Amino acid sequence: MDIVIIGSGNVAAVLGRKFKAAGHTILQILSRNAKAASELAYELDTESTNYKSTINRQADLYLFAVSDQAIAEMAEDLKLPGKIVVHTAASVPKEILSNVSAHFGVFYPLQSLRTAMPGMPDIPVYVEASDELTLAKLKALAQSISPDKVAEAGTEARMKLHVAAVLVSNFTNHLYKLAENYCRKEGIDFKQLQPLIEETALRLREISPAQAQTGPAIRQDESTIQKHLELLRNEPDIRTIYEQLTRSIRAGN
Amino acid sequence: MDIVIIGSGNVAAVLGRKFKAAGHTILQILSRNAKAASELAYELDTESTNYKSTINRQADLYLFAVSDQAIAEMAEDLKLPGKIVVHTAASVPKEILSNVSAHFGVFYPLQSLRTAMPGMPDIPVYVEASDELTLAKLKALAQSISPDKVAEAGTEARMKLHVAAVLVSNFTNHLYKLAENYCRKEGIDFKQLQPLIEETALRLREISPAQAQTGPAIRQDESTIQKHLELLRNEPDIRTIYEQLTRSIRAGN
Repeated sequence: MDIVIIGSGNVAAVLGRKFKAAGHTILQILSRNAKAASELAYELDTESTNYKSTINRQADLYLFAVSDQAIAEMAEDLKLPGKIVVHTAASVPKEILSNVSAHFGVFYPLQSLRTAMPGMPDIPVYVEASDELTLAKLKALAQSISPDKVAEAGTEARMKLHVAAVLVSNFTNHLYKLAENYCRKEGIDFKQLQPLIEETALRLREISPAQAQTGPAIRQDESTIQKHLELLRNEPDIRTIYEQLTRSIRAGN
Repeated sequence: MDIVIIGSGNVAAVLGRKFKAAGHTILQILSRNAKAASELAYELDTESTNYKSTINRQADLYLFAVSDQAIAEMAEDLKLPGKIVVHTAASVPKEILSNVSAHFGVFYPLQSLRTAMPGMPDIPVYVEASDELTLAKLKALAQSISPDKVAEAGTEARMKLHVAAVLVSNFTNHLYKLAENYCRKEGIDFKQLQPLIEETALRLREISPAQAQTGPAIRQDESTIQKHLELLRNEPDIRTIYEQLTRSIRAGN
């Protein structure tokens, strides 16, 4: 497909690379961030513009990969009749694009995407669309970058997926960050925890988190828990989170 | 080395496999759990016993891989003069074994070990010992199963490592479990989150958790946070944890 990407942030960059690697053509990057737009355009071997008035009108599909707030701003007064227009947001209904074209939808990547990310992670994609033909085209596009990881999801299902994603990615990453802060203060090399971090994630390919739980909370090891809380006496934030999660584990949640 | 393993649980099983794979000989499994002892002995091609009185006295090293509470019970009245005796516990001083032999220490695996675990994960090992010669032998044993992942750590350092391990493994696994529970109730396939879970863990090989953070909390996206809390209105435990971790992220902790 010939694609115009609206946006130049993390989602725009990673999906742009995936599309290009799958053989699609990125016709243009449209973004109000001139520097990011021209850098991404250079990487994707295409042109960039900072103004809606100079949007390339020859594409098959227009991907709004911008913040929730910016979708409406970028869509305002933009008319792309006959084109497919989609956004990538978890929490925004597809109808926000209904004035841009009669063929609108959502192309939601269930992944934590960073411009400067190593490698090209698998990205499950959830799609929905205004009509069957548009849906079929979105599915084909999604399959081209993520074979076997494409499904349909409406707004409510997408928001629930996003809640689950926040739990397993944003919050786990924050626990990594709290641990890194603690290690730095205590003179421990955080990198020593990497095998443990990876094992905890990778074993879920074969066993469920309920089967995988170890540690003092699930063992009801009150003595170790108290020693840990004493070690955390000068870390009120980590200590509160430690108590909260320990309570949840011990309650069997 | 010729090794007797005291214990037949997760740590005993995984370290036993690692020792055997590295060319050591497991002379015996000593455990009060007769069934687990004989099963592990069968797997490791050795004998088992359930009584301290019939412990094999020909080994070079005796590994106490039992619960914190059971170390003292198994050590009581046991005399193994000239032998190396070590335990695997994060929170127990090495001196608990000083009446068993003059050569005592700790062999602490920094990993979440499960008998039924897939594959053989890397296991960083932290050692300490009563004397230099014992320390050198423990380091050599640790190197034989975990090249380049061996370091020294006294009781306090080991306990701090354990606190960090609880944060990045026990608590992240509990977030996975809460997400799995939520997905089950909402009809979402938890397995769809596996690429996200793995990416969140694996990218820490190349970037720090501080650089990796994404999601509504770090974006100060109050609108999405409120939508998520509304979706979690019937999940008081997840909701409390969501609020607590969101507060910590937004505070820049």
